[in-house]
Amino acid sequence: METLYVIKIGGNIVDNPVLLTQCLQAFASIKGQAILVHGGGKLATSLANDMGVQQTMIDGRRVTDEETLKIVTMVYAGAINKNIVAQMQSFGVNAIGLTGADGNLIKAHKRVHETIDYGFVGEVDEINSNLIESLLVRQMKLVVAPITHDGQGQLLNTNADTIAQSIAVAMAAKFNVHLIYGFEKEGVLLNVNDPSSVITKIDQTNYSKLKSEKVIFEGMLPKIDNAFKALEGGVQSVIIGRAEKLNDLINGTIGTTITI
Amino acid sequence: METLYVIKIGGNIVDNPVLLTQCLQAFASIKGQAILVHGGGKLATSLANDMGVQQTMIDGRRVTDEETLKIVTMVYAGAINKNIVAQMQSFGVNAIGLTGADGNLIKAHKRVHETIDYGFVGEVDEINSNLIESLLVRQMKLVVAPITHDGQGQLLNTNADTIAQSIAVAMAAKFNVHLIYGFEKEGVLLNVNDPSSVITKIDQTNYSKLKSEKVIFEGMLPKIDNAFKALEGGVQSVIIGRAEKLNDLINGTIGTTITI
Repeated sequence: METLYVIKIGGNIVDNPVLLTQCLQAFASIKGQAILVHGGGKLATSLANDMGVQQTMIDGRRVTDEETLKIVTMVYAGAINKNIVAQMQSFGVNAIGLTGADGNLIKAHKRVHETIDYGFVGEVDEINSNLIESLLVRQMKLVVAPITHDGQGQLLNTNADTIAQSIAVAMAAKFNVHLIYGFEKEGVLLNVNDPSSVITKIDQTNYSKLKSEKVIFEGMLPKIDNAFKALEGGVQSVIIGRAEKLNDLINGTIGTTITI
Repeated sequence: METLYVIKIGGNIVDNPVLLTQCLQAFASIKGQAILVHGGGKLATSLANDMGVQQTMIDGRRVTDEETLKIVTMVYAGAINKNIVAQMQSFGVNAIGLTGADGNLIKAHKRVHETIDYGFVGEVDEINSNLIESLLVRQMKLVVAPITHDGQGQLLNTNADTIAQSIAVAMAAKFNVHLIYGFEKEGVLLNVNDPSSVITKIDQTNYSKLKSEKVIFEGMLPKIDNAFKALEGGVQSVIIGRAEKLNDLINGTIGTTITI
């Protein structure tokens, strides 16, 4: 089977033009099939401030009312996605930017939470793997914005880590899929303030131990949980590390590699 | 050859949710191949106001500085395009939203004008007809935002009428193409204040006459010039009329039909 890299880059990379370009150059240089899923960044918050739309964050998640949904759709699917695609084209790579609504790429439903109303936030239900495959075979690289739809006309703000994991799993039947979470740190760290304290390998056994000892920075836990879900779904490997060093992450020479 | 409808809808329709939905329902009901090109609307101007970015219009064209380009990219490629796509999906139509950068759909260059600097405004150079065909044969309907790219990483704000005409001409070798300009009026009017004064047929002979008599509203002339360009490029027919009555426009029972 052919290899497919599903690469997620976080908001901190998106906010930094120099690091973003480094990361996109590395992405452009990937031989073979690749999908980039990008997060949001600070532009949505600054636009909300300009528009006088108050933002509420609960546990690091943006509560998405109607006005905020409009803002994140403009920023993620418009400004960020199209600038990434245009930059990729300038590197000679035929990228195509998509949200979950485009070609029914990602169907989702509005998150239901017992106590908190997160608003128009989506939980992924289904990935259109046929569409993805048909675009990949035409030598296109996909650039996916973290906006999905419910099939009833409603767009939904959706976690980019989860989108990357869901796409990786959906494509695992047809490709050797490697999932890479690129962000602003060296990997999963033993000490969040020490970049040299990267945990190079995590498996289910040492993860339980690290978790019970509360060594790992809490914000990393959902990412690692997503990684295990991907591996259980047939993904070959998951690597977490610095987005702008994407080539080294792909080679497995840096970052944290997660296995079952 | 199979029939392909290339339909452009203007900013006034995009601004009116009720008319827009009527128009999209008609678009969704088209049997066979169809491409929708949408204009901008007032949202870009109101967002610019919110952001404190001053807007300059010269002859009805928006001068597009860097901040304005960011705004139109967010509004056209983000908010408008993705809401249209999500709505189409709710009608059971598999729409895919694209800018000219996506899949290298529309290559353009920055407009050079002797006296006025319009900023990041594009003139269309090339349409990727192979990509369009490959998406159409997968039973997708295309929704195109009026943003193009120059292949060097630069996005460009581009006239939607011209994009529609360029796509129509590019596809004319492979399809029987009908180009429809849907907007907020009944068609080309003899008297701009009298909706019943529709000129039902325009050809090159009566157009010269109408133009020299200065009967036609000046703002319509670029649209009609685009129509003739399309016909000279192999497009079968061009019809101009009310966007929300798209079905009747397609049937040719209303609006202005332009022939060579």
